[in-house]
Amino acid sequence: DLLEHLIAFFQPKLLAGRKVVMTAGPTFEAIDPVRGITNTSSGKMGYALAQACRRAGAEVVLVSGPTGLPAPLGVDRVDVRSALQMRDAVAAALPDADVFIGVAAVADYRPLSAAEHKVKKSSTELTLTLTPNPDILAEVAARPDAPFCVGFAAESRELDAYAEGKRRAKRLPMLVGNLVQDGLGSDDNQVILYDDAGRHPQPRAAKTVVAQKIVEHLAGLLAIRATRLAK
Amino acid sequence: DLLEHLIAFFQPKLLAGRKVVMTAGPTFEAIDPVRGITNTSSGKMGYALAQACRRAGAEVVLVSGPTGLPAPLGVDRVDVRSALQMRDAVAAALPDADVFIGVAAVADYRPLSAAEHKVKKSSTELTLTLTPNPDILAEVAARPDAPFCVGFAAESRELDAYAEGKRRAKRLPMLVGNLVQDGLGSDDNQVILYDDAGRHPQPRAAKTVVAQKIVEHLAGLLAIRATRLAK
Repeated sequence: DLLEHLIAFFQPKLLAGRKVVMTAGPTFEAIDPVRGITNTSSGKMGYALAQACRRAGAEVVLVSGPTGLPAPLGVDRVDVRSALQMRDAVAAALPDADVFIGVAAVADYRPLSAAEHKVKKSSTELTLTLTPNPDILAEVAARPDAPFCVGFAAESRELDAYAEGKRRAKRLPMLVGNLVQDGLGSDDNQVILYDDAGRHPQPRAAKTVVAQKIVEHLAGLLAIRATRLAK
Repeated sequence: DLLEHLIAFFQPKLLAGRKVVMTAGPTFEAIDPVRGITNTSSGKMGYALAQACRRAGAEVVLVSGPTGLPAPLGVDRVDVRSALQMRDAVAAALPDADVFIGVAAVADYRPLSAAEHKVKKSSTELTLTLTPNPDILAEVAARPDAPFCVGFAAESRELDAYAEGKRRAKRLPMLVGNLVQDGLGSDDNQVILYDDAGRHPQPRAAKTVVAQKIVEHLAGLLAIRATRLAK
């Protein structure tokens, strides 16, 4: 804790006075009381980014799906399980937020209905009907009082096309893209930052270092926007 | 590590000279490169039991699905993801095993086919066809050279009926049953041990304590069997 205070003390306060609301980790969509659909997100990138935002002086609310990670010091964590719970927790945290960062690997689909009791195994095939989950980031970005929104895209191929397509479709000023095989579950990551000025590839590095780069880029874009609004 | 050596040193060597093969944790059944079906098993009960077996002097091979837990000292851990991988790893570890303990919450079903690339989100419902996974424990118990097999059953209701039914169907000499709401993901557990002599309810306790009780019961049954075979 002392070390964390020292590191934070010597960090430039690029986000001082800002409130950042973030999501991280996977979501878990119940099939029955024990089974569910999830994904391989470890939450490490989101937690590293929450810590970097905090070190940069921001007030941070981290809405987190199930991970085994401890909350970074000074970060206000809200634990959720499903995408619907995550949407509600984000909505509750949004007032006064300057920045929203959607890092969570929100499940795109959930079972249409969850069984109340554990489904007993049978020897035959089973069909599961899935219904689309809300797109939390798109919903936040579409609000009339939307904060500055940063998206994440983890793709297994054609990163530029998918990432930039996602950024434009959701009208995000900034998006962090990476290839699934480069980051998911690992301690390292290699990302490309996308914004209105183009693509900015970053070197492969520890997720803590990548998080610091993202904060610097974000702070730069916030400064440009503030200058523009002041004109 | 020194503490662990000390604890192990003072533990009665109830399983000295025995080789125990175990499974623990959930399995993860891929839908595509990032998504999959899993369950809320934390792996804590299985890891606690692996440690208790090791402290009791056994050679322990722990075939583990994805968990964030460190391997207990002196336990040989084999990491797997899916039920099919778990079955292969168990088969590879079985030769010379005296005991097999199936603690893992193996997914009963897996998607019939996993997509090679991340499935893109659409706004319509999606149907997933699931096919039954092999029952690893039943397969091991049915081998002509089967070791002493211990099963686990986590149920959301009617524990006695489901647990004893499972024990008889798979012809297991011992089964550990618990209610999902009593143990899953938690540090505590409340279990009932089932064997040919009946049901043996245990008090609610830390999973490490419950694990020790299970080892004692198991060692007792192994001793009875040895006496019977010697006659």
